[in-house]
Amino acid sequence: MTDHTHDPVAKSWVAEANDHTDFPVQNLPLGVFAPKGSDDRRGGVAIGDRILCLRGAMKLLDGQAAEAALLADADSLNALFADGNAMADTLRQGLFALLTDESRAGDAENILFAADECAMSVPFRVGDYTDFYTGIEHAKNVGALFRPDNPLLPNYKYVPIGYHGRASSIRPSGAEVIRPTGQTRSSEGQPPHFKPSARLDYEMEMAIWTSGSNALGQPIPIGQAGDHIAGMSILNDWSARDLQAWEYQPLGPFLAKNFLSTVSPWLVTSAALAPFRTAQPARPEGDPQPLEYLWDDADQRDGAYNVSMEVLIQTAKMRDTGVAPHRLSKGPMTAMYWTAAQLVAHHTVNGCNLQPGDLLGTGTLSGPDASSFGSLLELSNGGKEPLTLPSGETRTFLEDGDEIVMRAYGETDGVRSIGFGECRGRVTG
Amino acid sequence: MTDHTHDPVAKSWVAEANDHTDFPVQNLPLGVFAPKGSDDRRGGVAIGDRILCLRGAMKLLDGQAAEAALLADADSLNALFADGNAMADTLRQGLFALLTDESRAGDAENILFAADECAMSVPFRVGDYTDFYTGIEHAKNVGALFRPDNPLLPNYKYVPIGYHGRASSIRPSGAEVIRPTGQTRSSEGQPPHFKPSARLDYEMEMAIWTSGSNALGQPIPIGQAGDHIAGMSILNDWSARDLQAWEYQPLGPFLAKNFLSTVSPWLVTSAALAPFRTAQPARPEGDPQPLEYLWDDADQRDGAYNVSMEVLIQTAKMRDTGVAPHRLSKGPMTAMYWTAAQLVAHHTVNGCNLQPGDLLGTGTLSGPDASSFGSLLELSNGGKEPLTLPSGETRTFLEDGDEIVMRAYGETDGVRSIGFGECRGRVTG
Repeated sequence: MTDHTHDPVAKSWVAEANDHTDFPVQNLPLGVFAPKGSDDRRGGVAIGDRILCLRGAMKLLDGQAAEAALLADADSLNALFADGNAMADTLRQGLFALLTDESRAGDAENILFAADECAMSVPFRVGDYTDFYTGIEHAKNVGALFRPDNPLLPNYKYVPIGYHGRASSIRPSGAEVIRPTGQTRSSEGQPPHFKPSARLDYEMEMAIWTSGSNALGQPIPIGQAGDHIAGMSILNDWSARDLQAWEYQPLGPFLAKNFLSTVSPWLVTSAALAPFRTAQPARPEGDPQPLEYLWDDADQRDGAYNVSMEVLIQTAKMRDTGVAPHRLSKGPMTAMYWTAAQLVAHHTVNGCNLQPGDLLGTGTLSGPDASSFGSLLELSNGGKEPLTLPSGETRTFLEDGDEIVMRAYGETDGVRSIGFGECRGRVTG
Repeated sequence: MTDHTHDPVAKSWVAEANDHTDFPVQNLPLGVFAPKGSDDRRGGVAIGDRILCLRGAMKLLDGQAAEAALLADADSLNALFADGNAMADTLRQGLFALLTDESRAGDAENILFAADECAMSVPFRVGDYTDFYTGIEHAKNVGALFRPDNPLLPNYKYVPIGYHGRASSIRPSGAEVIRPTGQTRSSEGQPPHFKPSARLDYEMEMAIWTSGSNALGQPIPIGQAGDHIAGMSILNDWSARDLQAWEYQPLGPFLAKNFLSTVSPWLVTSAALAPFRTAQPARPEGDPQPLEYLWDDADQRDGAYNVSMEVLIQTAKMRDTGVAPHRLSKGPMTAMYWTAAQLVAHHTVNGCNLQPGDLLGTGTLSGPDASSFGSLLELSNGGKEPLTLPSGETRTFLEDGDEIVMRAYGETDGVRSIGFGECRGRVTG
């Protein structure tokens, strides 16, 4: 079957889907929503400023696409992706046909919801959340704050470094960011204090969602790893830097991270992202060749993504005085030192089993200069150089009332194309 | 209501429950089982060498105990503990009455299964698994291998150190231990190799299972933390020391741990453990007073447990030549530097939300000398001093065919009482 779903001139009969939207008919991201005030969650697809209900779509789709819509009539997308991406791919074909065929608008109108009258959920019931550390510039920046002469540890260019995060505290865009309290130390050799974090930060990451599974003890080879990527969302891995500095040795971050992680609610599928695949940037001269289990020529040719990410801030004062959110950074997803497929291959090489709906964070993605730094820790040089905002306010870390807005979108030839929606969070004390 | 369920002279009409068993009527641990060859999993209670089916028990119990049995008719105990321990406590009372009343033996006989004809599951559907590091002697022993002059990091006596583990690879006793393959480095400055782990180890821990939940952003105060402990099992946190040494900086253990963690399948409930509660050992002279959120006088008075743990090994050769498993160590659970309630209070103090059936590992529990060291890493002094087994074989780390058996039991005045059953695992290449 020829895939028409990327045809750049295709238009939907949903008028708002055809201009200035993250969600044209070429995107068709999947999510879980409920009409506001209702607990009746079910799968949906974003089209312009609307959400098409997949429960309702069952009767408008045929064969396997209708079966796929049935699997998506649930409070998570886990069942739809239980056996890989095939069902979602079929659903995409059916939805594209439905939403581009003007003659079917009448049937489908009554299963369209206004997106701003719906509440979104985390798209998957997350079994496990793993956060990687693939942003090499971020790793260098953070490392330099602690080890100026030797920012990268010796394992970095061999091992896709990752650690396990907390699944229970993953929330969709818009969830309140409650400033965490905990142990911090004002200076070395002094006992810790117990107080609200004074170095609350965001981290600009992408969320890679897995599909299918592997049996315990059965690694996923690098050549098959891409088939286990359901798609992506935006991830803000909120971090309390002062808690982290005191607690993280020797076993890694814990309370500094597990109070909240926020994801954008729409799964932009691997099928939708296909046109934005690109070559993984060549490893810099002198970097070691990865071990064989991490290397696949095809993956190197198109295992990276032309996706741009940006972070904006709006303080309470800016909101009150009508000052628009201010962009803190913009950077490319090609800042990943490892591809998504390499993360899957590494994660399972010891036999660890992935399940549908696992969340793999890329780690903070920073570019080589401040215009693309993905955290305040980097932008403020460890809190030493405050940023000045358009309101005249300064920031090293987040204050109560600050809202962080993250956006991401595919780019072809520098032209913004399908988007991921937003990942928002406002800090409260 | 007077609680008779600990009466030491109480006997069950299940004859095998009254002598030389981990599961007398004073224990009544809960688990999830299926008759062998069936996938029909449901809750059960261990009594002697039998399992009483809780689905079948519904009609033999009254009121809230029958409701509790209905909640336990599921493939996990999560629903039974969703709102705390109250339902399980009522169930315990009803089961105790049923199993001690000879006149009811006739009714109940046909819902008893022979335990050795059933397959056990992990008792909870684990949302998140957190592994702590409360064994201070273990922390000193491991620290000394890396930092002889300064084994404990400055945060240890202030922060109950913990990190997130992998939920998907938690398996019940008996699961095959497939030796993990991964990156290891033979010496500093050399590139890594990819090969099967040569330093595969066990870790003797206890699993603390949580009940009830707290809303995101709402810490559980130390005074209420004990109410969130459903009970305990044995935990073997298998570890690949060579993978760990290369990968774990700066974000903690990952592939070295997440290939498998094994739990004993019976939840020994907080109610069953009540007689074994004891005072937390006094903090050594000079140790700092914990911060207020971690301190509760009542918890210090009886927040520790008189539970003993032992680890045995049986190699393939020992099995083949009829040599019984050899005890490697025996140690007390009072080796925990922090109480279970302190772990709950710490975990949530930043607002992190616990859910029913979360697994909190104590970390490896070692006593002060080799007779009670909870890992081969410690027993072999980092692999430098091989152990000699009764078969004449030597071990630094685990070889293919080795089986590790962990047991634990409550002790009062040195007398062995209720037990936890076994946590077994055999290594395959």
